[in-house]
Amino acid sequence: MSEMLKVAVLGANGRMGAAAVDAVGEAAGMELVAALGRADSLEMLRDCGAEVVVDLTVPSATEANVRFAVEHGMDVVVGTSGWDAVRLESLQALLADHPESGVLIAPNFALGSVLATHFATKAAKYFDSVEIIELHHPAKVDAPSGTALRTAELIAAARRAAGVPAAPDATETELDGARGASVEGIPVHSVRLAGLVAHQEVLFGNAGEGLKIRHDSFNLGSFMPGVLLGVRTVGTRPGLTLGLDGYLDLEG
Amino acid sequence: MSEMLKVAVLGANGRMGAAAVDAVGEAAGMELVAALGRADSLEMLRDCGAEVVVDLTVPSATEANVRFAVEHGMDVVVGTSGWDAVRLESLQALLADHPESGVLIAPNFALGSVLATHFATKAAKYFDSVEIIELHHPAKVDAPSGTALRTAELIAAARRAAGVPAAPDATETELDGARGASVEGIPVHSVRLAGLVAHQEVLFGNAGEGLKIRHDSFNLGSFMPGVLLGVRTVGTRPGLTLGLDGYLDLEG
Amino acid sequence: MSEMLKVAVLGANGRMGAAAVDAVGEAAGMELVAALGRADSLEMLRDCGAEVVVDLTVPSATEANVRFAVEHGMDVVVGTSGWDAVRLESLQALLADHPESGVLIAPNFALGSVLATHFATKAAKYFDSVEIIELHHPAKVDAPSGTALRTAELIAAARRAAGVPAAPDATETELDGARGASVEGIPVHSVRLAGLVAHQEVLFGNAGEGLKIRHDSFNLGSFMPGVLLGVRTVGTRPGLTLGLDGYLDLEG
Amino acid sequence: MSEMLKVAVLGANGRMGAAAVDAVGEAAGMELVAALGRADSLEMLRDCGAEVVVDLTVPSATEANVRFAVEHGMDVVVGTSGWDAVRLESLQALLADHPESGVLIAPNFALGSVLATHFATKAAKYFDSVEIIELHHPAKVDAPSGTALRTAELIAAARRAAGVPAAPDATETELDGARGASVEGIPVHSVRLAGLVAHQEVLFGNAGEGLKIRHDSFNLGSFMPGVLLGVRTVGTRPGLTLGLDGYLDLEG
Repeated sequence: MSEMLKVAVLGANGRMGAAAVDAVGEAAGMELVAALGRADSLEMLRDCGAEVVVDLTVPSATEANVRFAVEHGMDVVVGTSGWDAVRLESLQALLADHPESGVLIAPNFALGSVLATHFATKAAKYFDSVEIIELHHPAKVDAPSGTALRTAELIAAARRAAGVPAAPDATETELDGARGASVEGIPVHSVRLAGLVAHQEVLFGNAGEGLKIRHDSFNLGSFMPGVLLGVRTVGTRPGLTLGLDGYLDLEG
Repeated sequence: MSEMLKVAVLGANGRMGAAAVDAVGEAAGMELVAALGRADSLEMLRDCGAEVVVDLTVPSATEANVRFAVEHGMDVVVGTSGWDAVRLESLQALLADHPESGVLIAPNFALGSVLATHFATKAAKYFDSVEIIELHHPAKVDAPSGTALRTAELIAAARRAAGVPAAPDATETELDGARGASVEGIPVHSVRLAGLVAHQEVLFGNAGEGLKIRHDSFNLGSFMPGVLLGVRTVGTRPGLTLGLDGYLDLEG
Repeated sequence: MSEMLKVAVLGANGRMGAAAVDAVGEAAGMELVAALGRADSLEMLRDCGAEVVVDLTVPSATEANVRFAVEHGMDVVVGTSGWDAVRLESLQALLADHPESGVLIAPNFALGSVLATHFATKAAKYFDSVEIIELHHPAKVDAPSGTALRTAELIAAARRAAGVPAAPDATETELDGARGASVEGIPVHSVRLAGLVAHQEVLFGNAGEGLKIRHDSFNLGSFMPGVLLGVRTVGTRPGLTLGLDGYLDLEG
Repeated sequence: MSEMLKVAVLGANGRMGAAAVDAVGEAAGMELVAALGRADSLEMLRDCGAEVVVDLTVPSATEANVRFAVEHGMDVVVGTSGWDAVRLESLQALLADHPESGVLIAPNFALGSVLATHFATKAAKYFDSVEIIELHHPAKVDAPSGTALRTAELIAAARRAAGVPAAPDATETELDGARGASVEGIPVHSVRLAGLVAHQEVLFGNAGEGLKIRHDSFNLGSFMPGVLLGVRTVGTRPGLTLGLDGYLDLEG
């Protein structure tokens, strides 16, 4: 009798999906039972006995995929974006009818990035000053990055909750843009440089000391340990979990 | 009726002590009631009505200072080294007879450094590789620094507890010392450079990604926010607390 | 017979001036013969036999000081700002009448900063991308810093001269300020953080590689080696020299 | 009539060679006329009219390849190691008979790395302290890296030539290896970390300031701009040139 966890990957022809197919195929304790592309029928998930479905598709397809999987008793790990409040509410309702099913929806599977954001949020209230520098390849179309925006929002919320005043800043004369974009009062600076991939620094300062938390993502491989952690854990976490940090052991 | 917390500083003529005298004197909600040097009698602590004693003296004096304070109903914040297992056990026994007294013994009062060590310990089990680089002024006599040794030990313990294997390392040919000192299997590299003060980087690596946590201590002022946090908190934490992280809100 | 170089410091009551008084007083081969403040007469320079005058005063005073020194056969090292084109032309005319006199006017005496700017200018044409991040204490009133502006201008000029095209940048959606200030096409990002002093990074990128040149100025002491190098060298360099790099051995 | 430079690549089946074949094939103004592997005859170089030969083979083959090319009037760009003093002397003798031929032998074609080493050598004499940290993937078998050894030797030579004393270092108690390997008196620290490729930092320090020069090599692509610069330039530089920096414009 097999002890292998049966895993299916949706979006297997995309870059992330293809990497996940490889990662699942090589991971101990897992068996890849399906690798489906856009044209394949979801019925194949049932036929192959998938226990965990990894959804790495597109915003227009992800909701139907997840619903199908939950309705058929599978757990789901989702790396696709597009889950707004309406979709999440609808999914919660579905999960109420399937209390044994687990769904993880994570905007970011890089363990290091998730840890960096968690630590930055924890540190936020202990420092007078905080700024974010994110650095990416020059083909990126948005600035700041989504990760930087989210990090800034979490830091700003933590500082508001603790009653930390605005960071000191005596700037009187500024060349337009020099002090970065302000995201809820947190300055965010976006660097675009040939040779880079995806990098972020959160800088904290008090009188006499500084703390820097930097994450570097060098390639897609950085997401796979997080995807596999999700696949291994989702079966033990019924209901909806938002963010990989929910699966990390960060307390105490 | 005064709401000010009455604080005494022992070791007021040392560099740390003098900085603490200034910091307490300027802090909201505190009143400096005594600043004692080596020649002064501990009886003065009682005479001035000290509620919290800050001990920044020397290893040969700290134990007697703390015992006197506890026996007279004061809380104590200790930044002096030299508290070995024997002394700690003896202090625990004393505190059992004074259950309302609080004592904080902290090897490091730099908030950023304490946070950095805490985060590094939390991250330790999620990465294949980890190394420490500590950088100090060239007048430092020991290498690695005490903070680096402690950080390495905490990281090593966290990895052992989680069953993380040794970091990959294919080194066959090594010029003596190139791979650093091994502290319980964690490589530690000590840089000594004119112009620097006290800095530490913990580097983590997985396939495709890296996480770096860096702390910079630029001057003694970096310790004062932590000392004041200790003074404000010690009265609400009866018993013995080891390490400032015990007073930080890092859970959840 | 003394071999000591006789040095006078103007602006001796300012922070830079006071540091220079100390540095000259401790330097081998130099003798501090005068330390003049605002109220002192320049005639004292002649009375004490000064050979080199260090001007660390204010823009409104520096021109008269330098002219006096040159007219009386002294060499001058100037760290005061305010030398515009008109003043420089007038000084050149004066030096034409005193061909044996040397004057060094330097906007920055930190050796490391001067070297960093020199190296960044040399590297500028070999990379597709370049951006500048400058980081300062939060009491600074201007952003970007003068050093960052000058570095960006020099880099931009070097790239224009070599025919390097604009750095690639696919940004379509930008939160205002995220991509920094544009200084002749070079993005400059200004960070203001408690605990910092004065720091600058120039980041270069090509496909597959990056080069970073970072300078840290931790305190005023960083300027003194450059001031002393200026004092030692100015006697051998008749005429006007702009920038400490003119005294550095950077060729070949 | 074609203006294209005819280029042949030897070692076309190796990783570097394959990358060079692609780079030459895509470069403006060049035509790839041959891509030879181990089994191919050097006579093919003559048959295809190669003007520049790029040798990216192995130490046991490179000398014969270069001699053949020079004897047949071609210029050569060599990225293969194994050129000891005996081989170089023999090559110099051959080139004396072929004064129109140019040969570039470079241990490193990453422009950023060559610039970083050049700048570090120039800066070496202006600082009290200098240390090197090199960071590589954990499959690397030697520590320190060849680049770090060479950088340290060049820095040490520059400091000796300028009479700079040893860096200050008060270390009395050292855990074995903490202070790194000593390469002609320069401490070198080797970090091995999953996720990294090839990175090097040279750290300089004076009282109050620091200078850091960091190079990151993220993939083989980082070598190609240097190879192409070599191919374009070698025809105008008769004789033997050692190191790509000989082709860079770094003076003045």
